[in-house]
Formats: sequence, structure tokens, C-alpha cells
Amino acid sequence: MQKYNLGYICQPSANVKKSIAILGSTGSIGTQALEVIASHPEKFSVEVLTSNSNADLLIEQSILLQPNAVVIADEKKYHQVKTALEKFPIKVFAGDAALSQVMEMETIDMVLTAVVGFAGLKPTLAAINAGKQIALANKETLVVAGELVTALAKEKAVNIYPVDSEHSAIFQCLAGEWNNPIEKIYLTASGGPFRGKDKAFLTTVKKEQALKHPNWDMGAKITIDSASMMNKGLEMIEAKWLFHLTPDQIDVIIHPQSIIHSIVQFRDGSMKAQMGLPDMKLPIQYALGYPDRLKSTFPRFDFANYSSLTFEKPDSTTFRNLALSIVALQKGGNLPCILNAANEIAVAAFLKDQIGFLEMSDLIEECMSAIKFIEHPTLEDYIHTDHETRIKAKEWIEKKLTVIR
Amino acid sequence: MQKYNLGYICQPSANVKKSIAILGSTGSIGTQALEVIASHPEKFSVEVLTSNSNADLLIEQSILLQPNAVVIADEKKYHQVKTALEKFPIKVFAGDAALSQVMEMETIDMVLTAVVGFAGLKPTLAAINAGKQIALANKETLVVAGELVTALAKEKAVNIYPVDSEHSAIFQCLAGEWNNPIEKIYLTASGGPFRGKDKAFLTTVKKEQALKHPNWDMGAKITIDSASMMNKGLEMIEAKWLFHLTPDQIDVIIHPQSIIHSIVQFRDGSMKAQMGLPDMKLPIQYALGYPDRLKSTFPRFDFANYSSLTFEKPDSTTFRNLALSIVALQKGGNLPCILNAANEIAVAAFLKDQIGFLEMSDLIEECMSAIKFIEHPTLEDYIHTDHETRIKAKEWIEKKLTVIR
Repeated sequence: MQKYNLGYICQPSANVKKSIAILGSTGSIGTQALEVIASHPEKFSVEVLTSNSNADLLIEQSILLQPNAVVIADEKKYHQVKTALEKFPIKVFAGDAALSQVMEMETIDMVLTAVVGFAGLKPTLAAINAGKQIALANKETLVVAGELVTALAKEKAVNIYPVDSEHSAIFQCLAGEWNNPIEKIYLTASGGPFRGKDKAFLTTVKKEQALKHPNWDMGAKITIDSASMMNKGLEMIEAKWLFHLTPDQIDVIIHPQSIIHSIVQFRDGSMKAQMGLPDMKLPIQYALGYPDRLKSTFPRFDFANYSSLTFEKPDSTTFRNLALSIVALQKGGNLPCILNAANEIAVAAFLKDQIGFLEMSDLIEECMSAIKFIEHPTLEDYIHTDHETRIKAKEWIEKKLTVIR
Repeated sequence: MQKYNLGYICQPSANVKKSIAILGSTGSIGTQALEVIASHPEKFSVEVLTSNSNADLLIEQSILLQPNAVVIADEKKYHQVKTALEKFPIKVFAGDAALSQVMEMETIDMVLTAVVGFAGLKPTLAAINAGKQIALANKETLVVAGELVTALAKEKAVNIYPVDSEHSAIFQCLAGEWNNPIEKIYLTASGGPFRGKDKAFLTTVKKEQALKHPNWDMGAKITIDSASMMNKGLEMIEAKWLFHLTPDQIDVIIHPQSIIHSIVQFRDGSMKAQMGLPDMKLPIQYALGYPDRLKSTFPRFDFANYSSLTFEKPDSTTFRNLALSIVALQKGGNLPCILNAANEIAVAAFLKDQIGFLEMSDLIEECMSAIKFIEHPTLEDYIHTDHETRIKAKEWIEKKLTVIR
């Protein structure tokens, strides 16, 4: 009998109040999670809040929600946060190491990992190691080190509840089907702001255009990843680990309206889809509240506004990030780690107008062929690969900028 | 905590071979069910086959599948069947009473009720009374006497597994969600061959046109019901009883491609849909095999053939059966029984070219206002109502034919 992601054996009781730590509470997912938590005080309490460097918002959130502890990763801001929270019974920590240490607090039931990028890996591993249930919004954790992360989760009997809307959709469709083998899944993709455009057009696009997502309101990194289709590539790799799939079981279909969030096809040929208006609060709430669906006032879908749902094949020739991701998905090892690190640098450079939209794929491809392939990496190998790739990617960008100057 | 249809507590073990009785094995659902059973000999065996009057096919099926017993409802055909099966260890019975009696056989695990119309009520009640699990393709049983049938099922700890593709879709979406309240459901409808047509057109249509369903290959009665939208009206009433819904929780949406088979919306706003090519074998197999999804070779859905799924509001002004059904749904009592009996006579008369397509609604409306309303009918009341309605309906037709002559 096949079990998806440990079969979700240890389901939380429906009547227990969950104590939540939010890794990255000041970002897009973090702030929306706090809205969800605030509307269900009978179900959730906030135990820990963390932020990379947004001290002002972290202070504001802490005064409002009175967590047990807060962490500001940027040590230069420690004094500001400490002083502001002085008169409250809130522990204040700073630095990357504290992010991981605080996850071990006994009073935490569930950790929502809502930080962006490779930075989420270490604290997520720390949380799993401490036996905390995980609501995973940081897809890079599974992209980079899925084998290692899922093995540790299995060992520690930790469930990983997806927060990404596509993976939440798959997960919702799998409820009650843990013993029914998946034949394949379709991850839906809006296609982003540049759907249907050709390479000539993409050469000219600026960050302002790429940051305008047609359906979803998200952070800058993931919005660029959506425009470049890298987001879908990363999601394919994430799905492989979350649902124990082989690469050929994972398909992508462009669905510009973003109403069907993803689809599972079972071995009897039946398909189940999860649908609704694009609103990240729903998958966040589902992950935090699972197995209960909590009452919500989120706007409801209405067929009167959607007389047609359309579908088309993705264009991985123009959007080369998708093709590169599939190579990483199939080859595995440290290749997804290289893909991810190169992409993080590429997106940051694109947002600084240092490289063009299509050059992001050039940079990623260059790194994927330059960095040494490791078939079965250890955690140290991942950290080393990530580090090496970032150096390589920055060199590539520097060289390019030098030529221009 | 809300439980749908008893919460499906007593789930059959995944490894037990189920012994199946098919009420109506020679019809469209019956023959497809036998295909499903034949492809899973490790999961199912055939215990009983019954037919109304198709002795030839019943004999053929019996010789092939060697059931323990067969029933031919038409007593005139008893001799033919008895003689043909003489040399086999197969018990042969005849008559309506035998249909109900045979349901009590100890060796039956599950009864698939695949007869058409009011005729399914008595044997279904007999099967529930004997504690048999029910795979329900005979929607009229719940339309006519839903309150009585579901109360008896609850008392006998019998689960009713829907076979109708729409209700199977809802049921598939509810797997693993038994404790999560439904906000509403959408029953999808193809709209049939006359979607978008006006009353002037409908006055002219003949049975040959009405029998051409664009997507589904079904029996004559249900195909006419699909063309007239009565099928969707009956399904709304069926859904009310199967899933314990109030009338305002049940919506209908026209979806001409028949790919999304129905949709559930939960109280968090999330919607789940079940999808696939239109093929009755899938819901039949799901009902027989629940909770296991058995491997199948049914053709798979391919987005390449469906770039657009469309939706529109139903037109209950032109297709007045839908409006009449909603009255019956809301008012309850014996009104759905009147609606159903009048419709059975109307469809039969339309198939004999005795009345026109739109006159079916006239006849049903006439019966709904003429027959005495009973708020809390007993089984005898239902039988009496059905009888009275048929007399009234036949008089109406006779009168009309007399005028023409």
C-alpha cells in the first residue's frame, strides 16, 4: 500500500488549539497567515514570529499578538526590536542560528515555513528534527533537499502540509484517498504575465512588467518565478517529494484563469480537482487547520464570472526555465540545488536590472553545467553546492556587467 | 458533527471479495456493471441477476456468469428462462414479488439497483431491510421516498453508494471530508441535445432527436429526461437525500462538455470537483469497489482534446421541468412522487409519439396540482400517490388523443 508523505497518520485532533511558529511572519505568506490565525482564535495561537530584517513590522505584529518569542535574523536590528518589546514578556533573539534554535521550543505544535529561498532549509530541518508538524510554504526546502527532508520527516513522524496553492490542491484531493495510487497529477499554471509571448518580446521586458501577475498577489521573488515559469519548475520538483511521484507522473497545464488549482488522476482514471478564487489564505488555512476546514469569509467563486475555463500546453522552448527544471527533476542529485541557487541569484540580478529576462535561463543553464554533479548529496554537499553556485552565478553577472561598462 | 449518508462508517475491507446482486442486469447500467465485474474477478462475484422482460439476454448473462439465482419479472417468460438454465445450478424465479424476496439472500453483500423508475423502490427497500449495502443507480427510489429510504438505511446501518455520475462525483469529493460541512454543491448538466433552443423549436422535436445525447450513452428513459432537464431535477432531489442538503444548497450549472461531473463547495470556500471522460463504468466501479479505486483501462481524459470547459446558467423558463422539480424539491412530501410518476407516463407517451416534447411539462404540472398533497407520506401513501398520478396522467393523454382523433 502506497502512502503519500507518510500517509498523514498522526492527524491532529479537531479540538486542540494549535500553537504556531511562523518562520517569516513579515512576508506575504506570513502576514496572510496571521490574518487566518486572527480570525480563528479558538483554533490557533502564535508562539513564535521571525523576520529576516523587517524590524518595524515584526515589532508591530509582536505587540499585537504577544508571541512567546521573536527572532530577527538581521543582527543589526536586534537592539531596535529588543528595546521596542522591552516591557512585554516576549523573548527576543537575533541571528540565523537563533532561527533554528527557537524551533526546538517545546510549546510549538506547528511551524509555518514562510521564508523565501534556500534560507528556509536549515530552520525547517531544525523544526522537523524537533518533531514539529510543518506547514510548508518554503518550496525551496524540498526542491533543494527533498530526499533528506522527507527522510527526516519520516523518521520523526512529522507530516509536511503543503501551503503552495497547487500542492494544497493535490493534498486536498488526496484526503480520504491515501490508499489509492496516483496515476498522475496536473499542476496548473496561470502562465504569468507573459503567456503566449515570444523570445523577441521577452528580451525587452522589464521588472515592472514581470511583477504584474494577472491573478495572484505574491512576494517579488515568486512573482518573477511565475513570469519565467521557474515557479512551476520548482513546484514539479516539490511535488515529486511531497507525493512520492516519479517525474513522468507530473504534468503541467497552463490554465490562465487560476481557478482549478491542480488535479490528481487516480488509477481508475477518475480525476479530482480543487478549485476556487486565487487566494493564498485558503491553502494557508487548510494547512494550519487540517483535517478541519474552518469556516471562512473568503470571497466565493461564482460561475457567472467564469463562463469558460481554458487550458493550453506550456511553452518550454520560450520559457526555458521549465525545460531546465525538468532536467533537474529527472536527474536529481544536487542539480535541483544548483538550479535553485542560480535562480535566486538570477532573480535578484533581474530585479536590480543587471540582467535581462531571458538571461536568467542562460545563467541557470551555465551553472547547471559548470557545477559538479553529486548523485547522493549530504546536507554539507547541499550547502557547499549552494555556495559554489552563488559564487559562479555572481561571477557570470559581474563578467557581463564589466563587458557592458 | 454532520455525517453525510451515515458518514459511511462501515467501510468494506479492501481485501474482501464482494458478492453482488444486480437489479436490472440487462439494461444499460446493468450490462456495464457486468463488464466492470468481469474485469475484476478477484474483487467481485455475481450472486443474483434480474431483468424485467429481456429473457434472452438474462439467459445469456446467466450462462456466462453462473449466478446463484435469477429473476425474470415478467412471469410470461418464466418458462423460457427456466428451461434454458435447466442444466445449471441456478435458481430461477419470476414476478415482482420475487424481485424483493431474492434480495434477502444471505450470500448477497451488495445490491446494485439498476432498474428504471418507481419499480425500483420496493426491491431497494427489501435489500436495505435485509442489511445489504446499496449501489444506487435507480434515482427514483430516493426521489420518490427519500425520507423513508434514508431512515431505513440509517436504522439498518446500510450505506447507499451513488452510481449516478453527478452524485458519484460529489461522493468522491467527500471522501476524507465526512466531518467538513458542505456549503453547497453544483450538479453539472450537459444541457442535452436541445441546449440553447427556444420553446418554438422544442414544440417541433421528435423522439429521434431527443434520443441523441451529445455526451452520454444511456437508456431511453434517462436520455429523454436529460433532453427535458427532468433528469437534473430528479438529481437535485436525489442529492438532497443522499447528502442531507437543504434545497438552497443545491445548484445546477450547465457544462456542455460533461467533463466536470459535479462540484462540492465546503465552508472554507474551497471547491472540489471530480472530472473525467463521460463513461458510466467509472462511477459504477467506484460504487462497487469503494473505498478502493480499482485499476481500469477506461480511456483517459486529455486536455489536448478539451482546451475549454464552459459553463452557463440553466434555462428553467424554457425547460420547465427544472422549475417544476425545484417546487417538488422545496415542498417535499409526496410532490416528488407525483412529479416522478407523471414524468414516467409523460416520457413513455412521448416515446410513443402521443404527446409533444413540451407537453410533458404540461402533463406533470397538471398532475402536481391535481393530486392531493401529503406532507408526511407513508410507504402506502407513496404507492397510492404513484398509482393515482399514473391514472390521472393517462386520462390527460387519452383526452388529448381523443381531441386529435
